[in-house]
Amino acid sequence: MTDWVNPLRDKRDKRMPRIAGPCGIVIFGVTGDLSRKKLMPAIYDLANRGLLPPSFSLIGFARRDWADEDFGEVVYEAVKKHARTPFRQEVWDRLAEGFRFVQGTFDDDAAFGRLAETLEKLDAERGTGGNHVFYLSIPPNAFQQVCEQLHKSGLANPQEGRWSRVVVEKPFGHDLASAQELNAVVNSVFPEESVFRIDHYLGKETVQNILALRFANELYEPIWNNNYVDSVQITMAEDIGLGGRGGYYDGVGAARDVIQNHLLQLLALTAMEEPVSFGPKELQIEKIKVFSATRPMQPLNETTARGQYASGWQGSEKVVGLLEEEGFSKDSKTETYAAIALEVDTRRWAGVPFFLRTGKRLGRRVTEIALIFKRAPHLPFDKTMTEELGQNALVIRVQPDEGITIRFGSKVPGSAMEVRDVNMDFSYGSAFAEDSPEAYERLILDVLLGEPSLFPVNREVELSWEILDPVLDYWAAHGKPESYESGTWGPASADEMLHRMGREWRRP
Amino acid sequence: MTDWVNPLRDKRDKRMPRIAGPCGIVIFGVTGDLSRKKLMPAIYDLANRGLLPPSFSLIGFARRDWADEDFGEVVYEAVKKHARTPFRQEVWDRLAEGFRFVQGTFDDDAAFGRLAETLEKLDAERGTGGNHVFYLSIPPNAFQQVCEQLHKSGLANPQEGRWSRVVVEKPFGHDLASAQELNAVVNSVFPEESVFRIDHYLGKETVQNILALRFANELYEPIWNNNYVDSVQITMAEDIGLGGRGGYYDGVGAARDVIQNHLLQLLALTAMEEPVSFGPKELQIEKIKVFSATRPMQPLNETTARGQYASGWQGSEKVVGLLEEEGFSKDSKTETYAAIALEVDTRRWAGVPFFLRTGKRLGRRVTEIALIFKRAPHLPFDKTMTEELGQNALVIRVQPDEGITIRFGSKVPGSAMEVRDVNMDFSYGSAFAEDSPEAYERLILDVLLGEPSLFPVNREVELSWEILDPVLDYWAAHGKPESYESGTWGPASADEMLHRMGREWRRP
Repeated sequence: MTDWVNPLRDKRDKRMPRIAGPCGIVIFGVTGDLSRKKLMPAIYDLANRGLLPPSFSLIGFARRDWADEDFGEVVYEAVKKHARTPFRQEVWDRLAEGFRFVQGTFDDDAAFGRLAETLEKLDAERGTGGNHVFYLSIPPNAFQQVCEQLHKSGLANPQEGRWSRVVVEKPFGHDLASAQELNAVVNSVFPEESVFRIDHYLGKETVQNILALRFANELYEPIWNNNYVDSVQITMAEDIGLGGRGGYYDGVGAARDVIQNHLLQLLALTAMEEPVSFGPKELQIEKIKVFSATRPMQPLNETTARGQYASGWQGSEKVVGLLEEEGFSKDSKTETYAAIALEVDTRRWAGVPFFLRTGKRLGRRVTEIALIFKRAPHLPFDKTMTEELGQNALVIRVQPDEGITIRFGSKVPGSAMEVRDVNMDFSYGSAFAEDSPEAYERLILDVLLGEPSLFPVNREVELSWEILDPVLDYWAAHGKPESYESGTWGPASADEMLHRMGREWRRP
Repeated sequence: MTDWVNPLRDKRDKRMPRIAGPCGIVIFGVTGDLSRKKLMPAIYDLANRGLLPPSFSLIGFARRDWADEDFGEVVYEAVKKHARTPFRQEVWDRLAEGFRFVQGTFDDDAAFGRLAETLEKLDAERGTGGNHVFYLSIPPNAFQQVCEQLHKSGLANPQEGRWSRVVVEKPFGHDLASAQELNAVVNSVFPEESVFRIDHYLGKETVQNILALRFANELYEPIWNNNYVDSVQITMAEDIGLGGRGGYYDGVGAARDVIQNHLLQLLALTAMEEPVSFGPKELQIEKIKVFSATRPMQPLNETTARGQYASGWQGSEKVVGLLEEEGFSKDSKTETYAAIALEVDTRRWAGVPFFLRTGKRLGRRVTEIALIFKRAPHLPFDKTMTEELGQNALVIRVQPDEGITIRFGSKVPGSAMEVRDVNMDFSYGSAFAEDSPEAYERLILDVLLGEPSLFPVNREVELSWEILDPVLDYWAAHGKPESYESGTWGPASADEMLHRMGREWRRP
């Protein structure tokens, strides 16, 4: 081991001294999409940035009959294709020394025995120090089995001074009851402080910037309340469909897949009070306060909308409807578009509806949080002067083209005091020379560091379901999603829902 | 006369139906710089936009021995060189038919007799309808004579249903007493409602946009007060020097030349309360309220600064100091840089210093109004996280590159919650396809329409001097301006002045 210093290290990253200590990651479900597209590249990028310990090891666990070299080949391909930072042979060579593969199924005690042996050997040979992350990139119905195996084989119960952590991907259940069950299963083996639930939205720079924006500045917080805000619209629109994802998505739907986790987390960051610090406990307290005050507006037939995409045009491509997608039953009632209206009954937000919507096969891919402001009184203006003026808006653009837009009225050049909407833009990408790390880079490093700020805890997950369950129950009992043409902005009922409340969806 | 419609007419200009009625303009001092660079081009541009009546006439009055054709030639050159809109022969031909020149001096009764005849003839032949603007583009010491001549010749006293208006350029006196005198002279002939004092800054789109920005929107007004604003900095910096302007400028100085009119008017628009309408009376009421509440901060030796430029580099050009400029006495005490601190003792602004500064031969040409906000409390941030964060600012960029900048803190990409200043920009030029009319276009049209909103009245001028006089008196009694190198941002005493008050000048 030389004292080689990675020249790619970001000198401005004040967290830089906090390189992860000795440890390894075991990925269950290592042959899956997430693993290849996100986890492997993120691990390489962390190594490339000099943030992984020399001893770092990556252990794949799956059914395939692979040798360590085969596994290494798969990681190599994934890194070449998906890594954010440039490929550097010396970084790769060091990292690849720590690759291991364990073949087995989740019911195979012997395989977990081999896993334990492998880890022990790595501890001894590479110095991973008995510290392990178990990344469950597997269906929730396999959690119990894997957790129990980890328990039986002693891997979940580290010796004094060592640690075991488990990473769980969504879905965190499909309703409150199942989430509680799942939490009980995981917590029966891993204490809550060792459980890291990944909502990759929380790893995005623009999402973390919500807190910087609100609390580092004097400008925004004074208008960030129901005196000035008329409504909040949180949108996650996707243009892709569900071809090939039938197995997972059918019966789950847009509300469970996106609103329960991503959008409610965005709501929490937008609506919460200033925390005492950005420590995990302090953030949790504020998020839990928001969730405790949040509930669907009533009656649900007027304040919610859902849809299912039919065929249509996505750009220049003719696309099929959900019911023609492979893996979906021809009478699937699964919604691919969901819109709900929530009230946040705090002193800051009472009376301000929060509209959350998400959908597949919409007009374009965009995630944003828009604070729509009340109209100013306009006493000194004639009516005709402001007829082209909409409501002011402050929009946090989460993706793509991360940044902030403020929409306000400005005088139109000319003799009259005519006012028209204009946009003022801040672009995250062009403001900072530093490249933004990928969400998974940030989150995996945080797991290795045991830094839980960006991971929702048990209670947050359960409260999210408490908020969403009434809507899901109502939908289950009443009719089915309205069909909408692919490439549009969702079903007519979603527009009607807002019209009833005297509003309109922002066209992002 | 055909019913030809000018294709350049701005269809979006809601004021469009308000084409000026039958009238003519007489310019005294028509051979001067202002007349050629601003007035003649602006008149052509108005004609080109279809905003002048068919009968419109332009009469030059000066000492030169010109025929109408010679005068027409001068206007032609001025228009070709300085007009904003494209040259159109048919527009020019129509306009030029109304050009007349009257040769004479201000003490020459016969000349004014000829002027009266000329106007009468135009009334009859072209249909100017007995409506005349008298534009005094002449030194203030000639006002009395010209006004009296206009009175004697009957031109200042139109018949029932006709109008006479007088346009006065700054300087509006050199202190309160002289301003009152000047006002008395003008008002002895022209009633106040016929007097139009031109402060061309008020004709700028960005200046008028201050009111649109503040009162058409919900976003800005809530933070536009002493709860959130720490200080206001109003800057008009010029990079040019005073070569060739000695005669006028020596003994006047930066404070009289710029602060008394431009900067105090910008202060009024920034600080005033919402008017009931944008009507002239309603705006005056609010501006007068602000001026009545405004006074220099004390003691003046600590809250003011002045300087005189010495030689230095303006870009790549070596330039001389004021005392070497032609037309300045070698021991001139005239300040070319002035900075003052004012308090606006209203409920909205008490405790917020307004810093006004202007200077010649500064780093670059820029006029802006900057609201500097207090620091947020930063409870959740570690100290190191915000050490690169300045104070939030909202900057109205008056010229050049008209627009708005908001400066605020944003998270630096990386693992830490580090915050750094970023800019968010709105550019007036790129937001509107419409070209902004020149300030003089707007203001001359307003004079023709009898629309006085953008012209400071008597009382405003006098109150401005009341604010400034104590500073001028103090300076006259104490020392002389500190010398500063050309191409820098002014004298060291200006920086010290702000440091004493715990602030720093913005570097625009």
